[in-house]
Amino acid sequence: MMKFEFYNPTRLIFGAGSLGQLGKVVNQYGKKALLVIGGGSVKKSGAFDRAVASLKAAGVLVVEFSGVEPNPRLSTVVRASELAKKEACDVVIGMGGGSVMDASKVIAASVLYEGDPKDMLVRAGKAPRLPERALPIITVPTLAATGSEMNNGAVITIDDEGEKLKTFVQAEVLYPRVAVVDPELTMTVPKNHTAFGVCDIITHVTEGYFNGIDGTPLQDRFAEGVILTVLEWGPKAVSDGSDLEARTQVQWASIVALNGWVQVGTNGAYPVHMIEHTLSALYDIPHGAGLAVVNPAWMRFAARFRPERFAQFAQRIFGLTATGKDTLSLAMEGIDKFEEFLRSIGCPTRLSELGIGEITEEMLFRYAEETLKVLQDEEGRLPGRPSLRKEDIVEILRMAM
Amino acid sequence: MMKFEFYNPTRLIFGAGSLGQLGKVVNQYGKKALLVIGGGSVKKSGAFDRAVASLKAAGVLVVEFSGVEPNPRLSTVVRASELAKKEACDVVIGMGGGSVMDASKVIAASVLYEGDPKDMLVRAGKAPRLPERALPIITVPTLAATGSEMNNGAVITIDDEGEKLKTFVQAEVLYPRVAVVDPELTMTVPKNHTAFGVCDIITHVTEGYFNGIDGTPLQDRFAEGVILTVLEWGPKAVSDGSDLEARTQVQWASIVALNGWVQVGTNGAYPVHMIEHTLSALYDIPHGAGLAVVNPAWMRFAARFRPERFAQFAQRIFGLTATGKDTLSLAMEGIDKFEEFLRSIGCPTRLSELGIGEITEEMLFRYAEETLKVLQDEEGRLPGRPSLRKEDIVEILRMAM
Repeated sequence: MMKFEFYNPTRLIFGAGSLGQLGKVVNQYGKKALLVIGGGSVKKSGAFDRAVASLKAAGVLVVEFSGVEPNPRLSTVVRASELAKKEACDVVIGMGGGSVMDASKVIAASVLYEGDPKDMLVRAGKAPRLPERALPIITVPTLAATGSEMNNGAVITIDDEGEKLKTFVQAEVLYPRVAVVDPELTMTVPKNHTAFGVCDIITHVTEGYFNGIDGTPLQDRFAEGVILTVLEWGPKAVSDGSDLEARTQVQWASIVALNGWVQVGTNGAYPVHMIEHTLSALYDIPHGAGLAVVNPAWMRFAARFRPERFAQFAQRIFGLTATGKDTLSLAMEGIDKFEEFLRSIGCPTRLSELGIGEITEEMLFRYAEETLKVLQDEEGRLPGRPSLRKEDIVEILRMAM
Repeated sequence: MMKFEFYNPTRLIFGAGSLGQLGKVVNQYGKKALLVIGGGSVKKSGAFDRAVASLKAAGVLVVEFSGVEPNPRLSTVVRASELAKKEACDVVIGMGGGSVMDASKVIAASVLYEGDPKDMLVRAGKAPRLPERALPIITVPTLAATGSEMNNGAVITIDDEGEKLKTFVQAEVLYPRVAVVDPELTMTVPKNHTAFGVCDIITHVTEGYFNGIDGTPLQDRFAEGVILTVLEWGPKAVSDGSDLEARTQVQWASIVALNGWVQVGTNGAYPVHMIEHTLSALYDIPHGAGLAVVNPAWMRFAARFRPERFAQFAQRIFGLTATGKDTLSLAMEGIDKFEEFLRSIGCPTRLSELGIGEITEEMLFRYAEETLKVLQDEEGRLPGRPSLRKEDIVEILRMAM
């Protein structure tokens, strides 16, 4: 029976051209902004200049912090928060993909955090000490993928003491005050990253759909709605990046896929994300590409434990019919279709396609151990439906070979 | 192309038994609460006593205001806000159906409003002066229907100077701080009101679905998800009011149907609601019963202007096939199915079933005029798709005879 709490106070300003409102928006929260960006694509595209112009016109001073890497590192976050302190910034703007927005959230919290920011991050066996304050956060996504623009989570890689652990934090103070979402900014995203984003969107939704509790018919429909929309519009955005209508629909789906509306009350878990995080922490592969490899393999493993739910996916998403099939066969047929879709838009679906060299059995065990270092339940398993032992994670990865 | 702003900061606490948290919740916002209720059903059910016990245990003083009528009147709101001022209440709790929650919102705003609260309400030809402050509002719905618990709207009937105009206000300060939603409280709702609530839920969603802009595929899926869920669970809640699972699913659907998640970006209008409001203002019939009469008639009228959208409804909601039919026939078949559904759960679908006596052609014209007194566009029409002239409203009502 559903029992839950929901709260998402982020104000969303959505639509082509909305970047022009950035200065007016930020001015309501601060007068000196730390503008956080990634490797410079926003400079090439001209979006950075337009953002700065809008901020200056509204009387907001800008301190630039550039160079947030994909799979952003805690050391980078700490450097940026020190800059924000030194410059007395009173608002943080994250303009970029999920990495930049996630980093910006943790920067905004680190500025006001007492102690080591590492302590706010989830690690197995150590309760996180959540941030209780943060500078106001404004997000400006340039990629349709993570949904970070309108949620309170951030994925960060701890990179000190020889460790490289991709983990996360979720806290109410990390909700952006405003998300300024301008689909025009995604039009320069290359084909492969557009496709990885599509896979990320779908995987955000499948996690709750397959790992959640029973008895959430409305959330099921919402999740299916997101997937069906992305199946229709994702390939259009991949094949013609300048199709603003497709970019708009995909970006809207990316927000909804992880702003809580779909997962609410399902009490789901994120095993596919957790396993993928280990891969992208170790090899710096794009998160969405890693998901495209892990998700179908995980689905084939998990379908044995809950075939009827995967059969529902097969029927409602791919219109497959149940006639003359047992439930598990129908379920597996749906997963095949999903994998076919991922391949059709150019996603890798095997570990061997990730360009990370030869993978041994021993390495699979290491990946599983790393994953469990981030999160495990009382029985030492990765939460999910089913919860996964080390050997299960290895089996899933083996299925992705 | 979608372009919109979305903001809904209400914290939702959902689940059977959550009434027990009321005191702890309210205590975060105030120490002396105006507890607004309706005609006393919450006293009969024991919910009132449990709420008061929870509030007292948390150290919150309670001032009772009872007697908010169905289709709540501005004069009642004003009386309650005077009581709140006199007693120096610092928080307002609305515990009841939509009428009570709507009244509570406007009470909370009226306490801090400078001037006549009537001025915050929408009337044709007079721009509303929206409230900019309000006491903190906490909602505790006892009926699954209006969705008022998690949105910023309120429907109020102006009843002075011989006028009786059912109108509304929408303002950011009217978002409840917290909605404490306990489906157990709905288990004493009688069959007919449960059914009216089901119709209200569906109609909230059909308004945006049929009156919104083109090109909102994700919102379409969400709307269809709400309707499909209610078609499945609504009849169970009607036939066995003590089925907590059914009550829970229907209540969850009622929140989502009007908290903005489904309508966002559709730029829809509410012609069915506007026409119904005239009927319930004049005859004090239950809002949901009035909607069950107006909505199918409106649909048959509007389908001629946008048959493909109504055909989509027929296919996706009722699984009807398009083969061998023209689009309009398919559309009409879907509407017939919808009306059948309403009848199957015990809703009236004709004006003659509302117990309001004989209705003449002249009266239909009066209803249309009253409706247009509340809202009209620059051309004097009721907004919607299509927008409606007086004669159109009359034709719709005639179709509901």
